[in-house]
Amino acid sequence: MKQQQELLVKSVLDSWYSHVSRVDNLLDTLTDEKLQNEVAPGRNRGIYLLGHLTAVHDRMLPLFNFEKHHYGQLDEIFITSSDKAAKEMPSAADLRLYWKDVNETLAKHFKTLQPEDWFKKHSSVSDEDFAKEPHRNRLNVLVSRTNHLAYHLGQLIFLNKP
Amino acid sequence: MKQQQELLVKSVLDSWYSHVSRVDNLLDTLTDEKLQNEVAPGRNRGIYLLGHLTAVHDRMLPLFNFEKHHYGQLDEIFITSSDKAAKEMPSAADLRLYWKDVNETLAKHFKTLQPEDWFKKHSSVSDEDFAKEPHRNRLNVLVSRTNHLAYHLGQLIFLNKP
Repeated sequence: MKQQQELLVKSVLDSWYSHVSRVDNLLDTLTDEKLQNEVAPGRNRGIYLLGHLTAVHDRMLPLFNFEKHHYGQLDEIFITSSDKAAKEMPSAADLRLYWKDVNETLAKHFKTLQPEDWFKKHSSVSDEDFAKEPHRNRLNVLVSRTNHLAYHLGQLIFLNKP
Repeated sequence: MKQQQELLVKSVLDSWYSHVSRVDNLLDTLTDEKLQNEVAPGRNRGIYLLGHLTAVHDRMLPLFNFEKHHYGQLDEIFITSSDKAAKEMPSAADLRLYWKDVNETLAKHFKTLQPEDWFKKHSSVSDEDFAKEPHRNRLNVLVSRTNHLAYHLGQLIFLNKP
């Protein structure tokens, strides 16, 4: 059973890392100018989706009880606000660095977790709620964040020529 | 530990069902004509992505050792071939029925599985390989199929007006 638990954590972690790598590889093929383009007519720009994914992953640091998030200033621009509403935006060059830093910091912490740690509640769940809904654990969050990443990756690839 | 295993299976299954529902809800808002549109200029048409997702999910029936797939004829059109290459295509009305049938059939089988069944190898892995790579189990496949579904859902929503 313990082995199965480890296998499960490995499955979920592998899919997380593989999607982060797919975005990394895509970013390597896109110039900063290309990132200014909308992924489709009237849709979010590449730079907005990069900032959005970075902000959402950054928020996982406190959510998983790892550490304070690194780029709280991104929340207002890339989570609370839509692309067109966004005023001042960091440069594509800076966002690339933030994206790399956030995912590397998460990976560093993930490596310190024991399989059973993945089943502990995340910080936004109260002890009372966790007692009622024990599936609201770290692994569950990673599953949904990986789906969120895959969802936007499917859009970001449109920045490359058909 | 057993409880954690059940929690994990529940997390992965919940994310699968929620993404299937999101596609169902999107399809309800799209006319058959709308499905003929490309999701973005020069990209796959909605009808191709619907057929692609249906064919990939249909293949999960034998892969999970449930039953023979229902629509083998879709593989050549929606998996082997690209959209533009595809010749004869089923109607949008038929694909909607196939999509519904395949996901309902999978759900029927999922309900019969015990948590430990999710950790058994899928049919395309040999016993030898499974001994070496025990993470190649049903749950691992469901994790990656859910990511695949999220990836294309992020593209299908572009069929709706911005």
